[in-house]
Amino acid sequence: MTVSLETGNLALRLWFMIHRTHEMLKVCEDRVFREYKLTTEQYVVLVTIKYLVGPVRPSDVARWLGRSPNSISMMVDRMVKAGLLRRVRDRKDRREVRLVITSKGETALKPATLAGWEFIQKILSQVSYDDRHTLMRLLDTLQYEAATYLNPGADIEEIRRNEAKSHDDLMERLVQYTSLSAPEAKRQGGKRGRTTR
Amino acid sequence: MTVSLETGNLALRLWFMIHRTHEMLKVCEDRVFREYKLTTEQYVVLVTIKYLVGPVRPSDVARWLGRSPNSISMMVDRMVKAGLLRRVRDRKDRREVRLVITSKGETALKPATLAGWEFIQKILSQVSYDDRHTLMRLLDTLQYEAATYLNPGADIEEIRRNEAKSHDDLMERLVQYTSLSAPEAKRQGGKRGRTTR
Repeated sequence: MTVSLETGNLALRLWFMIHRTHEMLKVCEDRVFREYKLTTEQYVVLVTIKYLVGPVRPSDVARWLGRSPNSISMMVDRMVKAGLLRRVRDRKDRREVRLVITSKGETALKPATLAGWEFIQKILSQVSYDDRHTLMRLLDTLQYEAATYLNPGADIEEIRRNEAKSHDDLMERLVQYTSLSAPEAKRQGGKRGRTTR
Repeated sequence: MTVSLETGNLALRLWFMIHRTHEMLKVCEDRVFREYKLTTEQYVVLVTIKYLVGPVRPSDVARWLGRSPNSISMMVDRMVKAGLLRRVRDRKDRREVRLVITSKGETALKPATLAGWEFIQKILSQVSYDDRHTLMRLLDTLQYEAATYLNPGADIEEIRRNEAKSHDDLMERLVQYTSLSAPEAKRQGGKRGRTTR
């Protein structure tokens, strides 16, 4: 059996496109957040601390972002130096460190979130409501296969349910934070609850 | 005007999914290539050198991968140390450096390419032929918007035509290299040339 050029080409092309699209979006995001003197990574750390419920330990940020505690710790070091974060000892348990956003961090975070939100809407402006659902469904299929690959023999449904729940909570809070002008809301306001599946 | 929770949530959720999917695929790829003692980045550099036509300069690799010459140069340093690449002076122009894959590099490259190819097919196994085309179309829309954002006022069609052409050339060669057993080729062999657009 051999792969036909057509089939092989389609799969490979899709693969390149997935990576290339992500790369391009990352370059765009870097540009969006640079306006607020933040790297995209710093922005993501700030927004995570802002929207996790209760006091946030570095290990919470690491788990949430799927990063090693070590890399988050180095990142936090740089952000403390840059005046965006403070490390505060927990009152009850002095061994525990909590991360607190400074007022400089807050000052950058809000307009950066709005700019990021505007950017997302711009990039998605040509993707219809139905196509957004289709794209989510397709990405979900890829994620499912990736999770199966990474966790052989595990209960993938269970892993994914837990992930989805904490994402939902975070997004609910984020979306309330960014509830502001967007012409799109008008255009698509009448389509609540429709799905393509 | 305010964003409805539904609309805002959909856009944000899609955004998270795009990033999260890419992240998960990257973790998978790291695992695939680690088997061959390569990082994903090293693999990508090797495969780029292998499939670009003619002698390859570090600047070609940088341009192809959309990376800074500086970061590629550091990467090449590490790969030379690891015995995967050699730097060779050009005979005609002694100032020019060419990159050559060592036999150790070649020995890793071939099985890594096959493993990567198998992985891609596994991940895409639940995505139908039509859905692959749909996914390409949707990613293409995002890329177009990203290119417009990154190059305001430029001729986006022209930029993208040039990119597409060199990608096509590379992929044609890659697919010939990976032309091997794949049950998928049989299943989908009869659908050549169909598009969903």
